[in-house]
Amino acid sequence: MASSSSSFFFSLLFIFAVFSAVGESKTSYFPGGINLQASLKKQSAKPKLPYEVQYFPQVVDHFSFIPSGYKIFYQKYLINKDYWHKGGPIFVYTGNEGDIDWFAANTGFMLDIAPKFHALLLFIEHRFYGESLPFGKQSYKSAKTLGYLNSQQALADYAILIRSLKQNLSSEASPVVVFGGSYGGMLAAWFRLKYPHVAIGALASSAPILQFDNITPWSSFYDAVSQDFKDVSLNCYEVIKGSWSELDGLSTAEATKIFRACKDLKFVYSAKDWLSSAFVYTAMVNYATEANFMKPLPAYPVEKMCKIIDGFPAGASKISRAFAAASLYYNYSGTQKCFHIEDESDDHGLHGWDWQACTEMVMPMVVSEESMFPPSSYSYEDTERSCQRMYGVKPRPHWITTEFGGNGIEQVLKRFGSNIIFSNGMQDPWSRGGVLKNISDSIVALVTEKGAHHADFRSATKNDPDWLIHQREKEVDILQKWIGEYYRDINQN
Amino acid sequence: MASSSSSFFFSLLFIFAVFSAVGESKTSYFPGGINLQASLKKQSAKPKLPYEVQYFPQVVDHFSFIPSGYKIFYQKYLINKDYWHKGGPIFVYTGNEGDIDWFAANTGFMLDIAPKFHALLLFIEHRFYGESLPFGKQSYKSAKTLGYLNSQQALADYAILIRSLKQNLSSEASPVVVFGGSYGGMLAAWFRLKYPHVAIGALASSAPILQFDNITPWSSFYDAVSQDFKDVSLNCYEVIKGSWSELDGLSTAEATKIFRACKDLKFVYSAKDWLSSAFVYTAMVNYATEANFMKPLPAYPVEKMCKIIDGFPAGASKISRAFAAASLYYNYSGTQKCFHIEDESDDHGLHGWDWQACTEMVMPMVVSEESMFPPSSYSYEDTERSCQRMYGVKPRPHWITTEFGGNGIEQVLKRFGSNIIFSNGMQDPWSRGGVLKNISDSIVALVTEKGAHHADFRSATKNDPDWLIHQREKEVDILQKWIGEYYRDINQN
Repeated sequence: MASSSSSFFFSLLFIFAVFSAVGESKTSYFPGGINLQASLKKQSAKPKLPYEVQYFPQVVDHFSFIPSGYKIFYQKYLINKDYWHKGGPIFVYTGNEGDIDWFAANTGFMLDIAPKFHALLLFIEHRFYGESLPFGKQSYKSAKTLGYLNSQQALADYAILIRSLKQNLSSEASPVVVFGGSYGGMLAAWFRLKYPHVAIGALASSAPILQFDNITPWSSFYDAVSQDFKDVSLNCYEVIKGSWSELDGLSTAEATKIFRACKDLKFVYSAKDWLSSAFVYTAMVNYATEANFMKPLPAYPVEKMCKIIDGFPAGASKISRAFAAASLYYNYSGTQKCFHIEDESDDHGLHGWDWQACTEMVMPMVVSEESMFPPSSYSYEDTERSCQRMYGVKPRPHWITTEFGGNGIEQVLKRFGSNIIFSNGMQDPWSRGGVLKNISDSIVALVTEKGAHHADFRSATKNDPDWLIHQREKEVDILQKWIGEYYRDINQN
Repeated sequence: MASSSSSFFFSLLFIFAVFSAVGESKTSYFPGGINLQASLKKQSAKPKLPYEVQYFPQVVDHFSFIPSGYKIFYQKYLINKDYWHKGGPIFVYTGNEGDIDWFAANTGFMLDIAPKFHALLLFIEHRFYGESLPFGKQSYKSAKTLGYLNSQQALADYAILIRSLKQNLSSEASPVVVFGGSYGGMLAAWFRLKYPHVAIGALASSAPILQFDNITPWSSFYDAVSQDFKDVSLNCYEVIKGSWSELDGLSTAEATKIFRACKDLKFVYSAKDWLSSAFVYTAMVNYATEANFMKPLPAYPVEKMCKIIDGFPAGASKISRAFAAASLYYNYSGTQKCFHIEDESDDHGLHGWDWQACTEMVMPMVVSEESMFPPSSYSYEDTERSCQRMYGVKPRPHWITTEFGGNGIEQVLKRFGSNIIFSNGMQDPWSRGGVLKNISDSIVALVTEKGAHHADFRSATKNDPDWLIHQREKEVDILQKWIGEYYRDINQN
């Protein structure tokens, strides 16, 4: 009876909201998916990145010629030419749903390998995120402006910017390889499919291109999160699974107290959402080393969470254990006196995803009985109703699979495509919607058992495990092969 | 100093207008390119076609989610299931810039081969042509509505319609092959590139996908027309080449008389346009058999035209010879008492091409000194000015090559593409912008020396020459190979 909603990456539009709340919940849960805390804003002071900031003029609508579509906006991009030799490769990060600086800061891999390839680095911000706002402060005002926020327009932006940049650099023969993680990985893979004349290959990390329609089982995402916890400790999994019914029995006052909310909670389901987000995000970023992608966390944070849960004295309530575990996610730095449970902030500018999920990025999900989350089914009708109330638009749930391929896409890639790496880490629940098997000689799946959400894209550290070092080496080998082939090809002609 | 304009197929936006006229000519030549006569309308009574007419609901904008883009229109398509077995192939004609009935009537090849393949036939009308008008009678009102007339939207229409039809037929595993001639051939080839998951192959006949930017020499089109006439008779070529200066010396009254205009001519350049169109179109449709594509014409009409020119008594003026030759094109049936030179009609609903040429279909052309036409150069600035005055929009001259590939596209196709036939006849001036060499094992060029504009797509007749019969047999062989491979592939999985 309850519906889940499409969800992605950080902007998880949590199904729990629908489940626990009444009345307005079905429409109001949309912007509530982001559980980032305002107070963390100061902590995440921007690291100094070795990129020059540039802005490129783009038309707002590449696919129509209506006069209003000719409006120009300035797309931000980051560029580094330190290692580049003219004629050398251009590595492009196809920005996803957030500030491009943030993705650049978390994609040190490209910087690490640039010297070896004498590569130019380019990080292009996705339209409607960060500073790349086509209608300035009015960009999110309504569907009239937001309408131009979608993947095809973004891909066209990238093609045009890359072509122009190559011309300006007088280096039109430079091979371009696109890189992307998560939704950015989907964009990188799709870019290679739709613009093979612009990019010679794509490294798509943690890109769930199969998470649409009915290609991937709808329960796989939450099952995968649950499996991560179960693999560490059955007790941990069971405590979390049992915590929801305890939570349901609480009043808002009790929940406010237990969850140390900075402001009195209005709904108990907010706490549910807050807890669930912690478990989902921690599974996603269950990195092998200490990291600060979404939040500062220790190495293998799922293990640490379960250690907290398992370490409680017998007789402690499940909800207090679950809260303590979630606190690791929200407060590893130990600076939080209270939690902003219903007034989360959006530090990385991710809220545009809600719109994308309401239009083209419809990824149906359910929560199975086997997962550690409260079971839930999916209703497209509920999603449609919510989106119409929220934005006044109807989703186009089959558009992505029509435009980029759906069932059988592997067969098509096998016969038609080439030069794509799909890298996935099985700790990451998004891996279940990814390409996990080699498709052909040049469309390969690099799967690591212990990897998390685009772990390969992070800067190398001295603590990196062998499997991660090995994965990155493989990626470099494949990139070298593509680039070598490209140069041989053009020299023959 | 003078500018040519992008031009295509029937809606040739003739450079002569720019050349000969003054003042407003640079803007007013746009809708004047079509030299079809109103009086022929009755003659071209629609043949009865073995297709059922259907209409499919499409959104007007596939690439944005602005509320106005959700507007639904009904796209016309023709369907024939007479030879189809469920699970069998679906042959789709990707409609181009005119009424779909007209293309269906002139693509008898598909009907001829349907029984052999047990194929379902589908002819989809291009948006903004024929009955497929997104805004009804207001569709051509301004750039606000016309803005949605472009190739990418058309390709998306085709993808969505095909997917839906296969679902409705419960035949989702049916292989789809797309067919198209001229601009429709470009669409077919591009569809295979962009939607390889929807179509397993494309037969693109007379598709000048290389006529953009600076891929193909800008003079090649008019040089090819001239070559057709020169190959038949050097005298014929020289008479036509010499006729323009004679024409320039005429008053409008004299031109009205010589050209038997039904209404007094306002401009002498109209006669120039009328003459040139006759020569260009006749070269295009220089078929080996009697045919009625644009107009009823005998077999090898260029030969017949030159016979007329060469047959004049010595001392006859060049202009009277050129007029007599052009009369073959406009009046082979012998029913015309006078000619509608400045008030031509648009029997096949082609005028939308002018808009397309002013937005994305920018094909620069010049007329060289070696051609039989008055020399002319190209100025993008003039084109832009004209388009802005005419429609209020700026062309995007590099968009097609950014979206579909430009220089080096053959290399990309070689490494990335598969299953496309590019068929071209060298009599057709558009062949010069086509793919004339095999690119790979499965991207092949079928070139015939004596073929004209998508001659292979016409119904077989008892008078067909061997080379044409052979060309069609080759096409059938290749289609069989693709379809056979497809069925083997899916049966292995």
